[in-house]
Amino acid sequence: MNQGLDGIHSTSVGESFTLIGKARRKLSSIKHKIMVLSGKGGVGKTFLSTMLSLELARRSYRVGLFDADIHGSSTSVMLGLQQLRLYADDEGIRPVEGPLGLKVVSMNFMIESLDTPIIWRGPLKSRAIMELFSMINWGDLDYLVIDMPPGTGDEAITIAQVVGDIDGAIVITAPGLMNEAIVSRAIKFTKSSGIPLLGIVENMSYYKCPHTGAIHYPLGRSTGEHLAKKYSSRLLAKIPIDPNIEDALAGGKQFILEYPDSEASKAIAELAATIVSLVEKPTNV
Amino acid sequence: MNQGLDGIHSTSVGESFTLIGKARRKLSSIKHKIMVLSGKGGVGKTFLSTMLSLELARRSYRVGLFDADIHGSSTSVMLGLQQLRLYADDEGIRPVEGPLGLKVVSMNFMIESLDTPIIWRGPLKSRAIMELFSMINWGDLDYLVIDMPPGTGDEAITIAQVVGDIDGAIVITAPGLMNEAIVSRAIKFTKSSGIPLLGIVENMSYYKCPHTGAIHYPLGRSTGEHLAKKYSSRLLAKIPIDPNIEDALAGGKQFILEYPDSEASKAIAELAATIVSLVEKPTNV
Repeated sequence: MNQGLDGIHSTSVGESFTLIGKARRKLSSIKHKIMVLSGKGGVGKTFLSTMLSLELARRSYRVGLFDADIHGSSTSVMLGLQQLRLYADDEGIRPVEGPLGLKVVSMNFMIESLDTPIIWRGPLKSRAIMELFSMINWGDLDYLVIDMPPGTGDEAITIAQVVGDIDGAIVITAPGLMNEAIVSRAIKFTKSSGIPLLGIVENMSYYKCPHTGAIHYPLGRSTGEHLAKKYSSRLLAKIPIDPNIEDALAGGKQFILEYPDSEASKAIAELAATIVSLVEKPTNV
Repeated sequence: MNQGLDGIHSTSVGESFTLIGKARRKLSSIKHKIMVLSGKGGVGKTFLSTMLSLELARRSYRVGLFDADIHGSSTSVMLGLQQLRLYADDEGIRPVEGPLGLKVVSMNFMIESLDTPIIWRGPLKSRAIMELFSMINWGDLDYLVIDMPPGTGDEAITIAQVVGDIDGAIVITAPGLMNEAIVSRAIKFTKSSGIPLLGIVENMSYYKCPHTGAIHYPLGRSTGEHLAKKYSSRLLAKIPIDPNIEDALAGGKQFILEYPDSEASKAIAELAATIVSLVEKPTNV
């Protein structure tokens, strides 16, 4: 695979067409494709994508997770899979197998070490995404969760083109005026790309003091309700700040499996149930 | 200016050369250029860039601020300048004038409304950055602070090329293992681009309970000391989570001017003093 990456160059229209065709065939054995995005970085897209994927897997669905964040990919860390690498043979690329049978593809599994920056311009990123999708053997899956990078640039445009029939997008926000403005852009991106908006998740909504139980809003005012109302969508979940998220990570554990009774895990479980009901009844979307 | 933006297309090598030459001439009246970056989104690059710029302006330096985050630009919100637009004439582009005489250029000042997504691929983004820098009349400045987008893609590569003689980079991190891995990539990017690393700032380091005064670490373990040690650099500041940051923002005020005695403002004041001493004694960098 490393050779493949080193040899990546920008793509002609004809090549793109061929790669997209191959990618669509590879993706045809997947029932539902969910995009997790946000205009903003640092709101918890990777946390939400991995936890939602695990929660779906815990409910016995067959789940794949594609980490489309080339520069900031961190899925492998979140899932404790840092040491693994993607394996490619004549048949294509086999995803890394994560906890609960999750099938994971991420740039993390192709770079030398986690702290190596991928200093690539857009055409290379688009090419890499197209090539990857044209080669991955996902097998039969119920869900593919696509963890998008921040912004509405090459990665977002290319994935919307390559994957094609995305069931819907979950847009992640966090409290604070700034997030509200930037996350609006992601919502508008889904609309202009013809991707149904499943709803909005507000992450880092509040912090419950472990000593007094008092609720704090360290990042400021809620944005989820307002965004949901403004764009005629729904607020799917509000997920609190929980220091155990970091503790689980540092211990190489998965938060929702390690702390199933936490408010955050319960919110994620409800989110998964809602997503399933939304994509399996497409008339409600 | 809108016509200019609509007409943006990707750039030939010859054109790039000309644009870079023009940009360098426009930038030659600026004494010091500081890049604020992080591999990660959502760690507070824009907050830090604007507050550092304001703090330098408060110390009577002539300061410019360039917001290089095309998709997630939010400088105008942070500075309460949402309603302003850039003005271009035959001489070029005149920066927007912000609080304390700060000269600001951001994509925010060129788009129709704050929630409009800029759905651009890399070559367009590079072209836009080169064109902007080739046209902006900064005038005589002591400092230009460049607020970088997340990642090490087109914007970062192009700015390193166009601006050329950057005095140094401040790398922003936040607590948590995940940030540590991704922020390392930004540090390696500065090294591979030949940009001196001035040091590391840890944002959202801790949260002091307003009721009990107890210190909480909602985002997990500190990363700043460890990164500074690992890359033989220095930890320039630790800035706490402070809900007044959002309150100031919502009220259209600047946090460091509104809450000068807060721990966060004091940390930013010290940061500014350190940066001044570092770039004005380049042998120590």
